[in-house]
Formats: sequence, structure tokens, C-alpha cells
Amino acid sequence: MTQALTKLLLRPDFILVGGNNWKPIKNGELLVENDRILYVGPRRQYEGREIDREIEGKNKLIMPGLVNAHTHAAMTLFRGYADDMALMNWLEKKIWPAEARLTPEDIYWGTMLAIGEMIRGGITCFADMYFHMDMVAQACLESGIRAALSQGLIGLDKAKGAAGIIESKNIVSRWHGAGEGRITIMLGPHAPYTCPPQYLVEVMEVAADLDLPLHIHLAETRNEVKESLQKHNKRPVELMDSIGLFQHKVLAAHCVHLSQEEINILASKGVAIAHNPGSNLKLGSGIAPLADLLKEGALVALGTDGAASNNNLDILEELRLAALLAKGSQEDPSLIPAHQALDMATLNGVKSLFLEDGLGVLKTHSPADIIMLDLEKPHLNPLHELDAHLVYAAQSSDVEMVMVKGKILMEKRRLLTIDEERVFYEANTRATHLTY
Amino acid sequence: MTQALTKLLLRPDFILVGGNNWKPIKNGELLVENDRILYVGPRRQYEGREIDREIEGKNKLIMPGLVNAHTHAAMTLFRGYADDMALMNWLEKKIWPAEARLTPEDIYWGTMLAIGEMIRGGITCFADMYFHMDMVAQACLESGIRAALSQGLIGLDKAKGAAGIIESKNIVSRWHGAGEGRITIMLGPHAPYTCPPQYLVEVMEVAADLDLPLHIHLAETRNEVKESLQKHNKRPVELMDSIGLFQHKVLAAHCVHLSQEEINILASKGVAIAHNPGSNLKLGSGIAPLADLLKEGALVALGTDGAASNNNLDILEELRLAALLAKGSQEDPSLIPAHQALDMATLNGVKSLFLEDGLGVLKTHSPADIIMLDLEKPHLNPLHELDAHLVYAAQSSDVEMVMVKGKILMEKRRLLTIDEERVFYEANTRATHLTY
Repeated sequence: MTQALTKLLLRPDFILVGGNNWKPIKNGELLVENDRILYVGPRRQYEGREIDREIEGKNKLIMPGLVNAHTHAAMTLFRGYADDMALMNWLEKKIWPAEARLTPEDIYWGTMLAIGEMIRGGITCFADMYFHMDMVAQACLESGIRAALSQGLIGLDKAKGAAGIIESKNIVSRWHGAGEGRITIMLGPHAPYTCPPQYLVEVMEVAADLDLPLHIHLAETRNEVKESLQKHNKRPVELMDSIGLFQHKVLAAHCVHLSQEEINILASKGVAIAHNPGSNLKLGSGIAPLADLLKEGALVALGTDGAASNNNLDILEELRLAALLAKGSQEDPSLIPAHQALDMATLNGVKSLFLEDGLGVLKTHSPADIIMLDLEKPHLNPLHELDAHLVYAAQSSDVEMVMVKGKILMEKRRLLTIDEERVFYEANTRATHLTY
Repeated sequence: MTQALTKLLLRPDFILVGGNNWKPIKNGELLVENDRILYVGPRRQYEGREIDREIEGKNKLIMPGLVNAHTHAAMTLFRGYADDMALMNWLEKKIWPAEARLTPEDIYWGTMLAIGEMIRGGITCFADMYFHMDMVAQACLESGIRAALSQGLIGLDKAKGAAGIIESKNIVSRWHGAGEGRITIMLGPHAPYTCPPQYLVEVMEVAADLDLPLHIHLAETRNEVKESLQKHNKRPVELMDSIGLFQHKVLAAHCVHLSQEEINILASKGVAIAHNPGSNLKLGSGIAPLADLLKEGALVALGTDGAASNNNLDILEELRLAALLAKGSQEDPSLIPAHQALDMATLNGVKSLFLEDGLGVLKTHSPADIIMLDLEKPHLNPLHELDAHLVYAAQSSDVEMVMVKGKILMEKRRLLTIDEERVFYEANTRATHLTY
């Protein structure tokens, strides 16, 4: 028995298709058939029987879903637990002891809390690096969000490093392509300072064998650069280049402290960069050279990092921060114009996660990962330029509807796949035990 | 006939009284009698007849209202009209021509749009500098918000400068103390580069005569400093100090480009500073030395600036930005801890507007300027430290109830004193005419 095709029609006042095109289509329409977009353009005539459902779109805007290119979802459990502290103090006294107590069930509920928050903020896809990734994948499967997941690998201890690789392979076999392709797996060597070159070479071999991208933290702090120079006589990006890492598909998170030479390497080797301005500021890591990276043609997406170092998972906030910070730190208001910031949060995001073509843009045959915003808000009026409104004025709470692969995950601000009351209860109960 | 006293009881899960104290009172209560706070503390017994109304407070937090210490409210009409442009180009080609077309009615509706947005974001009080201030005051009177208003004065032309002073005096006589003290008037010499020293001396005489504070833009851009040095052989703050400006009550907006000497002047003379991190970044003005100012003991509040250069009026966003920017730009995560950021947005705000004692803190006899936030949001769970949640995770849309002088202006996200549909209509219609 085959299921009949489902056709869903959206007729919002404005459609922003994305993919370097943020000029709105006024009074157009978008037709979704099952999990894909069948049509975007001027309104046409339909007879009632051709359409299963129409979503009302007065004073609404639709656009591609937002992508969170770097997070540690379950760290929501530590949101507001330890703040305003020096980095090593924060890690050693607070975060690592609490993380050591995390059970798989904690990870499941912490991830569910994160996914609920992300859906509410219009995020349809995220890249996660953490542990107990079976639980993370399970939460993604149930909630309907799209995700590229990587088990964090630490190679400082030979036996643990080897066990991590085996575990990663198991996760690949269990989850890569799950949820009809919604869930993909990346390999997650944590960072150059926790994964020595020899170990990274092993990970790269697995990546080549299984054709998987890599997700790594890179050049996050001034101290990382200093220690890399002391130990390897090379800066982190130079070191990674020298061992051939960038011959693979790589998503590099942070990339704050870069020489011009390293900027050129990242751009010329096509390394995907997850820029995390909120976390980099809050942890005192610094300000990444975003405008320079983009000028050299680097692929830059946006990440929130974990909620312990941000403290929310709000990509609209990150995209605003990315644009403002570049303008202000370089005293040039023309840097990172609105459309460029929007590309970072959408198309660059799916490219950085090495997902299928068509995602990140609203066009025929694209997977239907779509969000709808309500424009009846004082901060979004009057309706001058909508791309500027999205970047400089919108809030994640303006997102009213979220759809991934044609399935509605939030409608009228109500989550349809997550029992939020239960998630709050579990998160609070578990957080209390974790952070005594 | 005298009106009976009205008693309103709030029993939220958490009360943050503010004023350097952000440790929550759990399961306490706050009693409002007419326009003032009668009691804050542990719960007591009441008989039904003693209380006129109780506001439900499960999963809610109350705190002092937020203060926006620098804005140009009616510039909401230009939100999203011109962005990502170099400053002089932006002003000369876009903003000034559009401003020249503003009618008094435009100012009224633009201000009403701004007030609606501010109330929705928990702002109970703001400092405005613009023109046609009768209309701004009228909008404040009707909407119930608290405001310190100043007519912008330009002294480059002798006749116009003199006319401005006369107009300011008229505004004082018409509006100072209106709305039972909700509306106060400041004198608004626009900036050192638009008000020559001789003119500022005249304005200062009026300030002394009428015992009014001054509101001025100061040291906003690198170019302002350069031109001041060329023209006066003094940097802007030095110049203002040399003519005795700081012997008066002064609210100085921006203060981005400061020498250490100027930081010392501002701190030692007790100048109130409105820090506008969002606008300073977006216009490419730079990053103010916030941590240095606070270290020297300067009084710093937070402002949004106008919506054409921000592009919203969201003090929760500014307070997060202020804290993050200080940490990140100086690579020190311990700078501007959460409680300090909250003080800037509340008590420092009312001090900077030279308002009556008691405002900015929830305590007995204080005017009842109170906001209530809903904590049942994924980004505010789990409930670790609430001050950190407010600074690093909260959104203005978490504000559920806003009260000024004991009168509820927003309840359950519904504005009670503003016809929002009409405001959106007027703002959009007028914006179209202004920006053709």
C-alpha cells in the first residue's frame, strides 16, 4: 500500500528564497509535496482537491531554515551554571566535573531541551559534537530536526583514542542516513591539542574509508596558538595543513586566532568554518577575523557553541553579532551587509555540514526545510528592507512555523514533536544532580 | 470624592530586587499600593478583602523595569531603510533628507511605535533626544511609560540656536513633571561639534536657572576626536570639561573614543554615560572602553540609540552585548559579570536620567516600575543562576508584564495602553511617504 502524496501550500506576504538572493517575492506562493518543494513563484490557481492544506500567510515571511553549524547540544544542562569565569577555571572547577557525571539519559534530555530551543529559534539543522551520540541521534530522530553528529574524539590516551574510533564507526553504521537522510555522521577529532598528529592521521584514514567529513575545534584561543608553536613550531592551522587534514572535508569551529597565511590556507583549501561570535566573546577568546576570511573567499557558517558558553542557541542572535562585530571592530559599517550574514546562517551552513545540494535555498526539488516569521511585531515595522530586519531587528521568537523535510515541527509557536513540559522537568531535575 | 487605594499583590517564584542585589528571593511577594511598592519580602497572610488583585506568578520572575538611557524614538520610522552604509553617506543621502520631511504627526506615530516596542521589551523608562518633543511627550503621557525628554539643540546658526533654547524652555513649562512626574525634561545640546562652546555656555546657564540636566552626544566617532583636536586643540571630553559642562548634571551618550585622561574626567566628575554598544558597532564607530570606565568608577547606563542605527530598541540585547563585548575585546571572561550588566540596565539607568531616589530597585516606597518575565522557555532552563540567564540567555519576548507607577502597561504580552494595529498602519503609511 503506497501513501498518497501530501500537498501543502504556503502563501505568505513575502518569500525570501535565499542562496545569495534576499530580495523578497511579494504575494507569491510555495508548494510542498511530501518532503520537497515543488514550486516557488507567483501565485497560481488551484482547485480545492489539488491541495491538502494551505497555511495562512498574511503579514508573514518565509525563508530557508537556519543552520547551527557548531554546538554541544546537551550542554544546555549547564546553562547559567558557571559564568564570568576564566577559561581553565571554568573548565576544571565546573564544566569537566559536571560532564563526568553525565549519563546517557542526561544527554538525551539535555539534547531534547536544546532541540526544542533551536526549533523555536528557526533552526532546522545543526552540527553537534559531544558524547553518548546514540542518545543525541535518538533525540534528533524523534524531534524531526536535521543534524550532522560527531562523537568527540580525544587521542591523548592511545587505548581511549582507539576505542573512540571504534565507537565512531559503530555510530556511523547505526545512524548515518537515519531518519530518511535527516541524520548524518561526521568524525569529531576534538582539537589539535587533544588529538596529536599521529592520531589525526588514523582518524583521517577512517574518514577516507567511509567518505565522512570531519568536525574539529581549531585556533579558538591565543593560548592554543602559543602551545602549538611551542610544541610543533607551527600554528594550529599550519599544523593541520601540514598533516594533510584539509585534503578531507573539514568543518573547523572557531578559527579566531589566525595569521594571514592561515586565512589563505583555510580559504584556498575550502575548509568550512563555523564562526561562533557569542561564545568567543563570552569566554574571552577574542574576535575572529570574519571580514578577512570572507574577503579571501572562505566558506563561513555560524554556530552557537554549547549553552554553557553562550548561553543560548539562537542563530538570529549570532548572525546579528557576526555582522555588528565585524563592522565595529574594524570601524567599517559596510562590512558584512545583511544579505551576506543571512547566507552565512543558511546556505553556508548546509554547505559546511556537507549536506545534499538544494538545501539552504527555497527552490524546486529542494528538501522542504522552511521557516515562517510573523512580521506583526513593533520591532519589524515599518516594512522597509526585510533582509535588514532579519539581521538587525528580528528575534528568534518571531519565528512562528518551522518545517523540516516537509514535516511541521512548530506551528503558531507550539512544538509538535516535543513534550516541552516533560523536557523542562527532566532538564531541571537532572541539572540539580549534575551540578551539586 | 477621593479614590480608594488600590492594592495589587504579586507572588512570583522569584523576585530580584536589584540595586547591586541580584540574588533571588524565592517564593516571596511584592505588594503595590497605587503607584508605589508597599512591601517586598517573604509571603504573609492576607484576607481577601485587603487585596484588590493578585497576579499569578508560577514560573515567573519579577525585577525592576529596564531603562533605555539614550534613543531617538521616532527614528523607528527609518528602521531598515538604510543599512550597511558609511556614516556620512548614510546621514547625507538617506537619514537627513528623510528627517527633513518629518511632520509632528509622524513623530507622534514613530514614537508610539518605539514605545510599544520598548514596553514589549521590559523598558519602563527612556531618555529621548529628538525634535517636535511636544508630540513625544504626548505619546509618553498616553502610553504610560516614564521618560526624560530633550529637544535636540543645534548651535551652528545663531538665530536657530536661540530659537531652540526658547522652544526648550517652552517644553519645560509645558511638560516637566507631567503625568504625575512620569515625564521630565532635560536640555539637549546635540554634540560638541554642532554646539560651539559659546552656545553651550548659554545652554548651561539655562540648565542652572531651571535646575535641569543636560543630554549630549560625546566622543562617538574617531573623526569627532580628530576634528575637535584640529579645531580646539582638545579632545571632546577635555573640551567639555574646560568649559565647565561637567559642573552640571550631564548624560553623555556614546563616549567611545576616550583617552585615559578623559576616562578619569568622566569618572571623577560623575558624568552619566549612556553606552550604546549595538549602535556603535553597527555604524562602525568602534568599541567603547566599558571595563576601563567602570574600573574608574564611572556611572554607565545602557542605550539603544535610534532604530535606524541599531535596528531595535532592546535593552536586554544591549546589556548582553555590553558584557560580551567587554569580555571578548579584552580577552577576559571575568569582565562585566552578570550582576554588573543588570545594574547598568536598571539602577544606573535611572541615576543617569537624574530621576527620583528609589527608582531602579524594588523596595518599600519605591515607585512601582516592575517587569515580570516568564521562565517557561527552553532558553531559560534549567534554572541555575537567574542573573546569568537574564544577561546571557533571555529575550525581550520573555517579558510578560510591565508596570510603570503601579499601572500595568502590558499583561500576558498584550499592550493595554497602545492600539498596536493602528500604530503599525500609521508607521507603515508614513514611512512610505518619508522615504520615497
